[in-house]
Amino acid sequence: MSVLKNAAASLKKGNFIVVYDSDGREGEADLIFCAKCASPRAVSIMREKAGGLLCLATSPEVAQKIGLPFMSDLLLSDERLAEIIYNKTKYGDKPAFSISINHRESKTGISDDDRSRTLTEFGKIVSMPKTAWRRSFVKAFRTPGHVNLLIGRGIENRRGHTEMALEIARIAGIPPAMALCEITGTRRQMTRDAAKKIARENGWVFLEGKDFFGE
Amino acid sequence: MSVLKNAAASLKKGNFIVVYDSDGREGEADLIFCAKCASPRAVSIMREKAGGLLCLATSPEVAQKIGLPFMSDLLLSDERLAEIIYNKTKYGDKPAFSISINHRESKTGISDDDRSRTLTEFGKIVSMPKTAWRRSFVKAFRTPGHVNLLIGRGIENRRGHTEMALEIARIAGIPPAMALCEITGTRRQMTRDAAKKIARENGWVFLEGKDFFGE
Repeated sequence: MSVLKNAAASLKKGNFIVVYDSDGREGEADLIFCAKCASPRAVSIMREKAGGLLCLATSPEVAQKIGLPFMSDLLLSDERLAEIIYNKTKYGDKPAFSISINHRESKTGISDDDRSRTLTEFGKIVSMPKTAWRRSFVKAFRTPGHVNLLIGRGIENRRGHTEMALEIARIAGIPPAMALCEITGTRRQMTRDAAKKIARENGWVFLEGKDFFGE
Repeated sequence: MSVLKNAAASLKKGNFIVVYDSDGREGEADLIFCAKCASPRAVSIMREKAGGLLCLATSPEVAQKIGLPFMSDLLLSDERLAEIIYNKTKYGDKPAFSISINHRESKTGISDDDRSRTLTEFGKIVSMPKTAWRRSFVKAFRTPGHVNLLIGRGIENRRGHTEMALEIARIAGIPPAMALCEITGTRRQMTRDAAKKIARENGWVFLEGKDFFGE
């Protein structure tokens, strides 16, 4: 079985996977799992073992059908911000950020229970027929909130964690709703080898950019 | 010395403080410190001991002079989002969220080094004469990023952590740029007593809403 199919099978069982991009891009490892498989315990593992921003990646199709904008486009509506909007980040890509959301039953939005509900309920909506996405989303979510949505730009256009996570979801045959969190090392991002070690210690599959794109 | 003056003095020395709102509002404790006093070590303490979103609170005056919008106003520019924008959160207030930022020297934006630079450089700008705020901010920051700005609505209008943090800064005579992170307990927000215990164990001053507003 290929390394990607192996990772997809593990993800489908509800396990975390670790995805490192490459030394030449962000040089960053993210802890990734299926949003629908979230639980309060999974959220606490994300904050304790990863420590970055807990985000929720979805596909261009979901974003288009629900009506989710890229944050960088939304920011353009305020001319005072024109000079500070990222054209490209330091690693050369446009940011994947969309809006941030809370499930409407959230209290503070940030607790393990609240973020877990936000992840699982979004995952459930994306598992429904496409015609129900927009209506169900609008009923269930509020913005701004405590989970950042990310929109993939297609793995042929951008080699980011967002796109790699969605590609694994596609291979696994699960809906395009993936939880992502950057693994922050001491001071700097965790190196490839340190991220690989953490994956091994926790029994998580480790993937990197070259598994998707070749050397 | 009053409890608020004591907390202000501790903050001014570069210490963390813990601020709990009240059982009747969010029921949430935040770990708070002066943005200009940030360091990579301080950011790692925020993510390990608090675990929420690392945010940066500033005053209405700074927001107005720099040109920072409330996120909920910015979201209004996209009519597809009209139905999901928070009118009021579950605890009855409008959200304090503004835009998210990275210092332009950030690599990924999320590492301890990057978030620390974002906090300290924002703190430095707000310490300058007001006439330099906008120009310096536009030169130094990019959006969207990995530190969420929060804008206070004035402590007479909103009894949130944002407003309480800014009030302590005012008492301490330090510029209105405060780092905040929610202390997430297991599954739910940490209770008042648990937050008070953590403050005591770490030598941090503990404050709560009633210290600001009376019983």
